Amino acid sequence: MDKIVEQTLLYDFYSELLTKKQKKIYEDYFMNDLSLAEISEQEGISRQGVYDSIKRTTKLLGNYEEKLGLVKKFDKNTQRVNQIYKYTHSLINESELDQKELQDIKAIQEIVETMLQEM
Amino acid sequence: MDKIVEQTLLYDFYSELLTKKQKKIYEDYFMNDLSLAEISEQEGISRQGVYDSIKRTTKLLGNYEEKLGLVKKFDKNTQRVNQIYKYTHSLINESELDQKELQDIKAIQEIVETMLQEM
Repeated sequence: MDKIVEQTLLYDFYSELLTKKQKKIYEDYFMNDLSLAEISEQEGISRQGVYDSIKRTTKLLGNYEEKLGLVKKFDKNTQRVNQIYKYTHSLINESELDQKELQDIKAIQEIVETMLQEM
Repeated sequence: MDKIVEQTLLYDFYSELLTKKQKKIYEDYFMNDLSLAEISEQEGISRQGVYDSIKRTTKLLGNYEEKLGLVKKFDKNTQRVNQIYKYTHSLINESELDQKELQDIKAIQEIVETMLQEM
């Protein structure tokens, strides 16, 4: 998995377990592209304090992933659900299906689409 | 969802976030059916201490679920994957499928089975 994608997924999955302050600093640095100096001024803490917070949060997110493995699971399940989609696609394209069969396969596709959105 | 099933799922999903001691007491009480007195003697802490630990752990698991919602997600996704399985089943039973179509549908079923085992 791409490093930035993984970082983003880690944050997506575990940010609710962080404190408000940890979230704010982490987001300002990684998502809003603020510098350590800018965050330091904004939060009223030292640059070193900002740096330590970002490092600690990054480590925390990694620890949660080690324990719960949600990003890894998400990655696997996304691949699986995409595979299911591929099979339904080939069924529709390469087969002569009657109305009922087509309906069943489209129903599978709809479930797959929901799963990809909400996983 | 059944209360006991939910309790078990909560523990399945979040026990890695508990301390060893919290896990031991919670498991002895709920899974191994030991009494407060038995656990108290075994752990060398008061009955009240055992009771407090169980209560605190139960609350912690609930808090994690509020934040991450893994049990809810698991429940939804299990339903969805089971629905996919039902559709593949009806396709196989009610249709005249050629070799290639049957192969694709069986492939979907295999993925679904893996997902149900590992979700």
